[in-house]
Amino acid sequence: MTRPSEDDLIARYFAPLAGEAGLGLRDDAACLSPKPAHDVVVTTDALVESVHFLPGDRPASIARKALGVNVSDLAAKGADPTGFVLSLALPDDWTEDWLADFVRGLAEAAADFSCPLLGGDTVKTHGPLTLSVTALGEVPAGRMVRRTTARIGDAICVTGTIGDSALGLALRLSPDWADDLTPVERRHLADRYLHPQPRHRLAEALRSHATAAMDVSDGLAGDLAKLMRASGASAVVELAQLPLSAAARKAVDLRPALLDTVVTGGDDYEILCTVSPSRLDSLRKEADSIGIPIAVIGQVVSGDDLPAFRLGESERRFHDGSYAHF
Amino acid sequence: MTRPSEDDLIARYFAPLAGEAGLGLRDDAACLSPKPAHDVVVTTDALVESVHFLPGDRPASIARKALGVNVSDLAAKGADPTGFVLSLALPDDWTEDWLADFVRGLAEAAADFSCPLLGGDTVKTHGPLTLSVTALGEVPAGRMVRRTTARIGDAICVTGTIGDSALGLALRLSPDWADDLTPVERRHLADRYLHPQPRHRLAEALRSHATAAMDVSDGLAGDLAKLMRASGASAVVELAQLPLSAAARKAVDLRPALLDTVVTGGDDYEILCTVSPSRLDSLRKEADSIGIPIAVIGQVVSGDDLPAFRLGESERRFHDGSYAHF
Repeated sequence: MTRPSEDDLIARYFAPLAGEAGLGLRDDAACLSPKPAHDVVVTTDALVESVHFLPGDRPASIARKALGVNVSDLAAKGADPTGFVLSLALPDDWTEDWLADFVRGLAEAAADFSCPLLGGDTVKTHGPLTLSVTALGEVPAGRMVRRTTARIGDAICVTGTIGDSALGLALRLSPDWADDLTPVERRHLADRYLHPQPRHRLAEALRSHATAAMDVSDGLAGDLAKLMRASGASAVVELAQLPLSAAARKAVDLRPALLDTVVTGGDDYEILCTVSPSRLDSLRKEADSIGIPIAVIGQVVSGDDLPAFRLGESERRFHDGSYAHF
Repeated sequence: MTRPSEDDLIARYFAPLAGEAGLGLRDDAACLSPKPAHDVVVTTDALVESVHFLPGDRPASIARKALGVNVSDLAAKGADPTGFVLSLALPDDWTEDWLADFVRGLAEAAADFSCPLLGGDTVKTHGPLTLSVTALGEVPAGRMVRRTTARIGDAICVTGTIGDSALGLALRLSPDWADDLTPVERRHLADRYLHPQPRHRLAEALRSHATAAMDVSDGLAGDLAKLMRASGASAVVELAQLPLSAAARKAVDLRPALLDTVVTGGDDYEILCTVSPSRLDSLRKEADSIGIPIAVIGQVVSGDDLPAFRLGESERRFHDGSYAHF
């Protein structure tokens, strides 16, 4: 089988995705000119087959996820995407068809997220497909939204809906509980696992109004605990206020134990942020205007306990509240 | 066996390496404040066990190489290092001893190269150890040294010595030819393969004087061909002018066929640059003052042929002049 060399591969597949700063991928490095008085925000996330995605996933979906999870981190920091670099370790049996679909998905995601390709490296591996993306973004100087700066009394908000992705993964691994879901509901959940929707369009509103933020990638309970620990505070969450999709609501109604999956499962890629009550209306209004739902789920309180999740009279704290990709 | 969680691992091993912009690795992203009127240069290189290094290599050496090959790219672009992010995919059988040695090597290299850790991601893999580094650097706006801008009549220069690393690898894979080398000579060659010495201290001189540059990572013949193709030119190189270490010289004298290994083997991590004859003395003087040897090996000529390597009356062109890591 003849396969293209690395140079051919770059010229044929990757160069068409390059942003201006990527110099057509014809140099050894990208060259960005940051806006005056702006900081550069840098984040990196790696994905490994069978750890972060499943062997049967479409190459285009894998590409979208690899970029999406990084753009989600930028969004949570209030940063507008500038571009990304990609390290791709291809297993011995890769094919050009695989790569063509991968690049198609990557191109679509890069366009959707306004995050062009800046450069990369392609290597071979005797192991599973492994991708590493480093994404760069920009914020006005000093305005990156931190994880350490939530204040007692702030409202705790999340975008979109929580738990769909973890239920989507559960559906694929052991679908017995889902007989009563409609095909549309199943597809909704499965799609949320495959195709994160990073909230990059919310970046400006977050840096205007949020006191602290991070994205929900390892499960709401664990990520909220991280945010609170970093800020030296605790939290009270009303489980009844959690924004659930119709499909997730039905799943939890059918099998109440799935609420744990919703709260501790990973891969939501929604924004978790804290907001002073006086700024809440402004944040909501700006989020509304770009079609991103925001729900208030609780409040930052003093203390160093794990966040409390209340449902009526009962209260739970999740000691192992994260899905570990490691 | 109890092993630290990802959070413990970051706090215990990686956070002490973090530069100011890395925010103590306690946030989701790094935040750089580029100097006013400077561009940000971004490069990424991945390393996979058994492809880019050998399974028995010391963890500290692997770490140094992963950072060194990226800093070498920055140096060739005339960029001063700002910092780096690291994706580390650890195989199932990793140990804390392994990681401690890895981090020790990484810390030393980061200090030597003035390139602090900004962030990273640690994941597990069922395959071989895989690392991806993205390094960032800075140049005054518009001053990145490109690959496309060599001019006909320019002198072609390389730093240091060429071929040691490829001979060092050959020595490890089939050492039969090396019986007449002294232990010191063998160690010199082996060390060049294990421990690249990126030429980051030459960055300022390169952006002042070089017309074009790249680092020699895939073999001199192939990389020179790339530089010439990108610049729309060809080259003539005098093989007698190639800077060889005493050990490499002896190896080639013992077995002349090893000259091909020297010219086409990879992993030199020296700088290949083109310089107007009028600037050659200035470049040499600045390189001298920081103790980096520079040799003139040839000249840029018109045409689109592969570079010609001359030795006396004979002339060779290397059609497959690169070591492919892919």
